[in-house]
Amino acid sequence: MTTKDKTLKGKFIVIEGLEGAGKSTAIATVKAWLEAKGLQVVCTREPGGTPLAEQLRTLVKQAAPQEQIAPETELLLMYASRVQLLRNVIEPALSVGQWVLADRHDLSSRAYQGGGRQLGDTLINTLRQAVLGDTRPDLTLYLDIDPALGLARAAHRGELDRIEQEQLAFFERTRDKYLQIAATEPGIVVIDASQTLAQVQTALQQALDSSGL
Amino acid sequence: MTTKDKTLKGKFIVIEGLEGAGKSTAIATVKAWLEAKGLQVVCTREPGGTPLAEQLRTLVKQAAPQEQIAPETELLLMYASRVQLLRNVIEPALSVGQWVLADRHDLSSRAYQGGGRQLGDTLINTLRQAVLGDTRPDLTLYLDIDPALGLARAAHRGELDRIEQEQLAFFERTRDKYLQIAATEPGIVVIDASQTLAQVQTALQQALDSSGL
Repeated sequence: MTTKDKTLKGKFIVIEGLEGAGKSTAIATVKAWLEAKGLQVVCTREPGGTPLAEQLRTLVKQAAPQEQIAPETELLLMYASRVQLLRNVIEPALSVGQWVLADRHDLSSRAYQGGGRQLGDTLINTLRQAVLGDTRPDLTLYLDIDPALGLARAAHRGELDRIEQEQLAFFERTRDKYLQIAATEPGIVVIDASQTLAQVQTALQQALDSSGL
Repeated sequence: MTTKDKTLKGKFIVIEGLEGAGKSTAIATVKAWLEAKGLQVVCTREPGGTPLAEQLRTLVKQAAPQEQIAPETELLLMYASRVQLLRNVIEPALSVGQWVLADRHDLSSRAYQGGGRQLGDTLINTLRQAVLGDTRPDLTLYLDIDPALGLARAAHRGELDRIEQEQLAFFERTRDKYLQIAATEPGIVVIDASQTLAQVQTALQQALDSSGL
């Protein structure tokens, strides 16, 4: 993790992408590759990853027929889950030299709540600075996929949750935000997730090899 | 509510104070007094007040033997609950001319998480500005009580929740922050809650009469 806290010794790698982009397979691939190098790897997911954060995951993903979940509420629940996971799992693991491999992190909020829900950059950037400070992943691998293709894949897995039930335009805005941030900030590698599995795995390995981690 | 949104027509009154300060009795008193004037009154509580926010209340107040709840997580859950209540209950009520009488609002986070948990003013002020913008209650009635007395009263009511189980020093810092903010910001009336019930009720009525609402 890039942070002023020099006691953090492990590396923090995040896998990002829309539903159906192949995050789970990518995580299994990268995990095996890191473990083959003798590294200890802790896998996390967001929202979730601690008992409390998993309860927040359920709340934020469940359909809420009685009430609309306000976009700001959704955003704050994502950050509550994130900071809980960071303090209780990610930071302790990094501090003892373990590597952390995360299924989603801060970039998801910027893409989904910022792009998809169209919450302003000012609100999100203020919140992330207030909550996360200068902590950043060492590497983010963004699996890019056309939302129509990703959603078709995700729908095959079973019932869609509250967020997955959004309209296609929501996911197109989310993807646009992912790509826009990846194009302008360091440490984010875009991987074409519409390729074959073998091609995606080759791209993942190349990204890791050239990351300098 | 003091806000740039001129469509809000009702008034927003908040009752604040430590555990055992007598908030519930004060709310019943003020509610009866407002209704006697022919006003429609909606009562709320924080954290809580909507189905989702009540679930957040349970999560944040329950003892969590498996994990520590990080102070920042607690703070974000309070704001998630608050913004959900604001968007779905408080703002709609005010917009149709109803008055809102709230058991706790933003000042609680500033006192408990800012004072009690000693989270920095910068974090909390950044968060409240990002989430609440310029919306403020029209009047806040803060029931001031010595924490030792308040906790003794609260303990009589039954089992204490996770936050109520904090040490006395936590509540002394919380009270100090309440008093410090009340001394420097407009719209907050301090009422001595160690007085008799009749004296407290007189003080509440005087505060309302002189508020100009």
